[in-house]
Amino acid sequence: MSENLSTQIQLAARPSGWPTHEDFHTATVALGELGPGQVRVRNEFVSVDPYMRGRMSDARSYVAPYELGQQITGGAIGRVVASAEASLQVGTVVLHQHGWSDLVQDAADTFRAVPETPGVPLSLRLHILGMTGLTAYTGLTAIAGMQPGDTVFVSGAAGAVGTAVGQIARQLGAGRVIGSAGSAEKVGLLTSKYGFDAAFDYKEGDPRTQLAEAAPEGIDVFFDNVGGDHLEAALDAFNDGGRAALCGAISTYNTAKPAPGPNNLSNIITRGLTVQGFTLGHYLHLSPEFNEKMSGWFAEGRIVYDETIVDGIEHTVDAFLDMMRGANTGKMLVRIAPVRAS
Amino acid sequence: MSENLSTQIQLAARPSGWPTHEDFHTATVALGELGPGQVRVRNEFVSVDPYMRGRMSDARSYVAPYELGQQITGGAIGRVVASAEASLQVGTVVLHQHGWSDLVQDAADTFRAVPETPGVPLSLRLHILGMTGLTAYTGLTAIAGMQPGDTVFVSGAAGAVGTAVGQIARQLGAGRVIGSAGSAEKVGLLTSKYGFDAAFDYKEGDPRTQLAEAAPEGIDVFFDNVGGDHLEAALDAFNDGGRAALCGAISTYNTAKPAPGPNNLSNIITRGLTVQGFTLGHYLHLSPEFNEKMSGWFAEGRIVYDETIVDGIEHTVDAFLDMMRGANTGKMLVRIAPVRAS
Repeated sequence: MSENLSTQIQLAARPSGWPTHEDFHTATVALGELGPGQVRVRNEFVSVDPYMRGRMSDARSYVAPYELGQQITGGAIGRVVASAEASLQVGTVVLHQHGWSDLVQDAADTFRAVPETPGVPLSLRLHILGMTGLTAYTGLTAIAGMQPGDTVFVSGAAGAVGTAVGQIARQLGAGRVIGSAGSAEKVGLLTSKYGFDAAFDYKEGDPRTQLAEAAPEGIDVFFDNVGGDHLEAALDAFNDGGRAALCGAISTYNTAKPAPGPNNLSNIITRGLTVQGFTLGHYLHLSPEFNEKMSGWFAEGRIVYDETIVDGIEHTVDAFLDMMRGANTGKMLVRIAPVRAS
Repeated sequence: MSENLSTQIQLAARPSGWPTHEDFHTATVALGELGPGQVRVRNEFVSVDPYMRGRMSDARSYVAPYELGQQITGGAIGRVVASAEASLQVGTVVLHQHGWSDLVQDAADTFRAVPETPGVPLSLRLHILGMTGLTAYTGLTAIAGMQPGDTVFVSGAAGAVGTAVGQIARQLGAGRVIGSAGSAEKVGLLTSKYGFDAAFDYKEGDPRTQLAEAAPEGIDVFFDNVGGDHLEAALDAFNDGGRAALCGAISTYNTAKPAPGPNNLSNIITRGLTVQGFTLGHYLHLSPEFNEKMSGWFAEGRIVYDETIVDGIEHTVDAFLDMMRGANTGKMLVRIAPVRAS
């Protein structure tokens, strides 16, 4: 018979500045009998993502804030371990948004079955082959209107989204791809593994100066994961008609007091720039187009990735905080150990 | 016979901060004989516009900087007083970009003949029926994608572009039009004469607070002539999917040191906003569409305007500086007195 104890991470308090362990509560909940149409899923991987920090605050946003005392929701992938719904059998792999727990039970239509493909680890559905990849693709195409030959600059390029942006830009015909990252090791990976033409360590000097050196002929597209001085650097480096897709601003998420913006916004006028923000919820219709292209690139061996894995649902908050500090390369994931046979 | 002495205002030095009279030089030049294909034009009105401040600096921009020792170019309207080109007869009214002088002589194809229409003062071709109106129309339509029902906020709304934006937004079906201006008198004009639903004096309090009061249900479109704290106010007031057309930033043109930007740029991401700058040069193809619509609205008596007139080419710099200080309501123009019969 199936286990029924679920370990869940809940939001205990709204963080001010950097979150701490005190802002979270780990609850063990005994799941009840399956209701009609419900399934029970044991997660294999749980995602921790920068956007979650925003939902921990109650500031107005496209996405509703997490409720205090409730589980943190977000992407996860697991396997059905009990089912009261004929269309979703035990053993099926499912993606869902139930988030930070090891065992979850809900209506079958809140889970989406995904095929198990030889050579495609399940975890990839949570990043390069999933929402992370779609985020990168959407920002480059629908938001920034990237064209073949464009010089593309990606901030926070060694993260999950950033590594996807760099590679997708290359597949779409970018002329030159430039990335920033927060350590020499990451900078090395960007050029040696991820195919970036140039990269710099933003902790080693002013991004404005370093970007100007890396892009002597200017940039056409900026994909921003970092905000702050990176946007300022991009505004200085933009060619006429340049386009910025603002996806994240991790440098600002944990500052209690908002920092002033770039001092060169007037370039937006004089160079005819477009700065557009987006959250993925409005662009899910691009999913089929993305899936078709990405699965092709992946099958041809053109896509690489890194994962930084933390084991155990009880370490989810550690994983989240480490990710916010930039301890990861590529995608930060929490792995849930399989249940030992009893 | 035609006069041949031209008074021209030249750029003598690049201003740092606020321009002064020392940055300009008034030259009297004797024009030579007309060459083949040339015409001589006596101006009736000369335009002073905020964008000219940008061209006095040598910062990179879509538009080339003015050259030191050369005449300040820009919009003007006058009448042909001598012609060596059959297609442009003496007496024809012409628009041109030769700028700050009373008498100008050049190839006929650098002038554009405009019809004299009863009830349409010539000066209007330099603002509401000309580039100023086209700028307003372009920002609202091609840049901000204004839709009927939208709440539109215009900064610096009592200026030449601002009064055009408010009225065009109304004609295009805006639900609510809100403006800011720099005096109680201007604020009064916006609501009493120009049809704004609400207006506030940005010198009397924080634009952020005042805009929130004027737009309790948020704004959808922002047309910016001012920059600085107005952009910050708009970013706070935007509804999801809002669009900003950045046309000018007069608050920043005369600051020697660039000021920091808004502290709420993260709203661009969380609300899915688009912030786009533009200069008119790339949108001149909208001219026929604009002319057709605007001439219709004008003929129906739906368009009003103000002009602030300064007499005499020798007072052009005064007019320019007064305009930068906000002394004008509507369009600031320099009027050239007709030549007395000799």
